[in-house]
Amino acid sequence: MNKGRVETFSDGVFAIAITLLVLTIGQPGRYSDLAHQLGQRLPSLAAYAVSFLVIGIMWLNHHTIFSHLRQVDRGLFYWNLLLLMTIVFIPYPTEVFGEALVRGQGARTAAVFYSATMTVNACLWAGLWLYASVGRRLLNSQFPESQRRTSTVLFIAGTGFYGVSIGVALLNPYACLAFHGGLALYYAFDPISRRVGRESPVLAPPAVVPPGEPHQDGAQ
Amino acid sequence: MNKGRVETFSDGVFAIAITLLVLTIGQPGRYSDLAHQLGQRLPSLAAYAVSFLVIGIMWLNHHTIFSHLRQVDRGLFYWNLLLLMTIVFIPYPTEVFGEALVRGQGARTAAVFYSATMTVNACLWAGLWLYASVGRRLLNSQFPESQRRTSTVLFIAGTGFYGVSIGVALLNPYACLAFHGGLALYYAFDPISRRVGRESPVLAPPAVVPPGEPHQDGAQ
Amino acid sequence: MNKGRVETFSDGVFAIAITLLVLTIGQPGRYSDLAHQLGQRLPSLAAYAVSFLVIGIMWLNHHTIFSHLRQVDRGLFYWNLLLLMTIVFIPYPTEVFGEALVRGQGARTAAVFYSATMTVNACLWAGLWLYASVGRRLLNSQFPESQRRTSTVLFIAGTGFYGVSIGVALLNPYACLAFHGGLALYYAFDPISRRVGRESPVLAPPAVVPPGEPHQDGAQ
Amino acid sequence: MNKGRVETFSDGVFAIAITLLVLTIGQPGRYSDLAHQLGQRLPSLAAYAVSFLVIGIMWLNHHTIFSHLRQVDRGLFYWNLLLLMTIVFIPYPTEVFGEALVRGQGARTAAVFYSATMTVNACLWAGLWLYASVGRRLLNSQFPESQRRTSTVLFIAGTGFYGVSIGVALLNPYACLAFHGGLALYYAFDPISRRVGRESPVLAPPAVVPPGEPHQDGAQ
Repeated sequence: MNKGRVETFSDGVFAIAITLLVLTIGQPGRYSDLAHQLGQRLPSLAAYAVSFLVIGIMWLNHHTIFSHLRQVDRGLFYWNLLLLMTIVFIPYPTEVFGEALVRGQGARTAAVFYSATMTVNACLWAGLWLYASVGRRLLNSQFPESQRRTSTVLFIAGTGFYGVSIGVALLNPYACLAFHGGLALYYAFDPISRRVGRESPVLAPPAVVPPGEPHQDGAQ
Repeated sequence: MNKGRVETFSDGVFAIAITLLVLTIGQPGRYSDLAHQLGQRLPSLAAYAVSFLVIGIMWLNHHTIFSHLRQVDRGLFYWNLLLLMTIVFIPYPTEVFGEALVRGQGARTAAVFYSATMTVNACLWAGLWLYASVGRRLLNSQFPESQRRTSTVLFIAGTGFYGVSIGVALLNPYACLAFHGGLALYYAFDPISRRVGRESPVLAPPAVVPPGEPHQDGAQ
Repeated sequence: MNKGRVETFSDGVFAIAITLLVLTIGQPGRYSDLAHQLGQRLPSLAAYAVSFLVIGIMWLNHHTIFSHLRQVDRGLFYWNLLLLMTIVFIPYPTEVFGEALVRGQGARTAAVFYSATMTVNACLWAGLWLYASVGRRLLNSQFPESQRRTSTVLFIAGTGFYGVSIGVALLNPYACLAFHGGLALYYAFDPISRRVGRESPVLAPPAVVPPGEPHQDGAQ
Repeated sequence: MNKGRVETFSDGVFAIAITLLVLTIGQPGRYSDLAHQLGQRLPSLAAYAVSFLVIGIMWLNHHTIFSHLRQVDRGLFYWNLLLLMTIVFIPYPTEVFGEALVRGQGARTAAVFYSATMTVNACLWAGLWLYASVGRRLLNSQFPESQRRTSTVLFIAGTGFYGVSIGVALLNPYACLAFHGGLALYYAFDPISRRVGRESPVLAPPAVVPPGEPHQDGAQ
C-alpha cells in the first residue's frame, strides 16, 4: 500500500472536517438585534475554536506518527479509517455542544457526548499506535526504542485523560470545554515528538537545516 | 492523460464525500431531553458508520485497481467520473435511510433506495474494471492473467450481491443495513488483491519491504 | 508561480464543488409516502447529474489546457480564480433549477439563471485561453500553431453555444437541461484535445505508452 | 516538519473554505416570483464574490510567503493553524453580512463583524510573517534583506487598513463591502512580491522561463 496516497487521503479528510466546523455555528435567528444575537452565539464560537485546535493538532500528530513509519499495510489502513471516522464525526457533537450552551439546555448531556466522542477517538489513536509499534511492526529503524516505550505510555495515558473529561463534563460543561482546550494545548507542546526528532537527527534533511539553527523543530 | 492527477482528483472526491456524511445525521429537535433525542438518532449514526466504511473501502479498492494500471485514457476517465457520481451521491440515500429509521416511516422504501444506489455503483465498478482489463487494455504487464479472470468473476458477482441487498431491503430495513456493513467487511478482507500482491512482488519497493516481513500487505 | 500548486488548488476546488452538488437535492418533506416524495425529486436528480458531468468535464479540460502551458503567471492565476468563482457557484443555480422543476414554479426563470451562469463561465474559459495563447504567451513550444487557432475558434464558439442555451431556457426548461447535458457530452468527445495529443506525441511518456497501443489517449 | 505536507494541508483548507462560500447565499423562499427573489439576493452574491476574491488572494500570498521559507517549524505551524482558523471562519460573517444586507436589518453590525474578522485575520498574517522573518528565522537565504524590511512595514500597515474598515463599516455597510473588495485588489496587484521575484531571479526555474519573456511573473 502506497504510504503517500494514504497520507494524502487522510490530509484531505482532516482538511475537510476542520473546515466543516464553521457550519456548526448557528446563524442568527433575528437581524433586528443582531449584536445581541451574535453575542449569544459566543459559546458556539468557543466550541468551534476548541474543536478546530483539536483537529489541527491531531493532524500534526498524525503527520508525526506517519513520518516514523517505514510502510503502511492493510491493518494500519483500517485503524486509520476507524480513526478518521471519529474525526469526521467531531463536527456533530461540536454543534450539539455549542447549541446546548447557547440555549442553556442539555449542556451537561452535550458535554458528556462531546467527551465520550473524544475518548473513543483517543482509544483509536492508542490502538493505531500499538498496532504500528508493538514488535516495531511498521516503525522506521531510526525510531529509538526508548522513545517507543514512552510514546506507548503516553498514548495509553491519553485515553485516561479523555476518560477524565467525561467526569469533568458531569461537573460543569464550561469547565469541560476548557479542559478539552487544555488537552489540545498539552498535545501541542507535547515534548515527546520533539525529543524524538532531536535524538534521530537523521530524519532532518541535512542540506536544509543547518546545525545550530536556533528555532528549528527536531520533529521534522 | 496524467494518471497521478486523476488519482488526486478522485482522492479529493472520496475524501469530501466521506466527510459530508456527517451532515446526514439530523440535529436534535429539542434540547430539554437531549439524551433521549440523541438516543433516537442511533439509526442515523449506524447508517453514517456503514456508509463511511463503504466509501473508505471503495477508496482502498480504487487505489488497488489504479496501482495495477499502466496508464489512464479518456474512456477510463469517463467510467471513473460516472463511478464518482454515484459515490458522491451516497450521502443522500444515507440521510434518507437514517431519517426513515429514526421516524419509523418509509424505512423499507429507504432501504430499497439505498440498496439500488449501491447496485448501480457496483455495476459501474464492474464496467470500469471490464473497460480496463478486457484484452488487458490498460493493465500493467506484471498483473497476472489468472488473477485478471478471477477479478472479473468477482466484480460481476459483486453486482449480484448488491442486487440481493434490494431483496433484503424488502424483508427488513435493519437487516439490509447490516447486510451492507457485511459486504463492506467482505471487500475489506478481500483475499484477491492480497494474493495479487504476493504473486507479483515486483510491485513492492524492495528496499522498504524486507522479505518475510510478517505484517506486510502484498497489494501495495 | 508554481504551476503544480495552482493545479493542486484548482483540483481541490473542482473536487469540492462537484461533491457539494449532492447537497442541492432537497430532502423529502414527508416519510409517510416516501416513494412518491423521492419520485417527485427526479428533476433535482437530473439537474445534479447534468451539473456533475459539466464540472467533471470542465476539470478534464482544465487539466488538458494546463498540460499545454509551460508556466503560470499572476495574470493567469487571476483568470483562473475568476473561472473557479463561477464553477464554485454552479451548485447554487443547480439547486434553484432543480427545486423550480420539482415545484413546477419559476422553472423558466431558473433555467435562464442556470444558462446565464454557464455563459459567464464559458466567457471566462475563452478569456483564460486567449490570455494564455495569444502570442503563445504561456504555451508549451510543442503545442502546434494550427491547433492554437482551431482551439481559439472553438472556445469563442463555446460562448455562443452557451448564449444559445439562454434562448432554449426561454422556450422550455427541460429542453434547456437536456441542452446543457448535450453540450457536456460534446466537450467530453471534443476531438480537439485528442488530435493535439496525436500531433505532439512528445508529450506522452514513451516508456509507458508503447507505439500502436490501440486504446491510448493522445491528450495525456 | 515537512513543508510540503503543511502546504498541502493548507491548500486543502483554503480550497474548501472558498468552496463552502457558495452555501452562504440563501435559497429563494418563494418560487412564484423567482426573478424578484433572486434579484433581492444580489447583496449576498456581492458578499460571496468579495469573500471569494479575498480568500483566493490570501491563498496566493500564503503561497508566496511559503515559497520564501527554507523550512517550517512547530511555531510556524501554530501561527498557520490560527491563521487558517480565521480563514475557515470567513463564510460565517459573509453569510451574516449578505443576509443583513438582503433583509436591510443589522447591516451596520454585520459590516463591523465582517471587518473585525478580517482585522483579526490581518493581525495573524502579520504575526506569522514576523515569526518567520525576524532574525531571518525561517527565511530563504536568497530573500533580499531590503525586501524583508519593506514586507514587514506592509504587513503591519495591513492590520491598519483592516482596522480602518471597521470605521468604514460604521459609516456605510455597502461602502465597507466595496472597501474590502478594494483591499483584495490592492493585495492582488501587490508590487512587493513581484519585485522580490525580480530581485532574486534565482528562484525562477531557468530552463522554463526564458529571459525577456514579457508576461512572466517574477514571484514564481
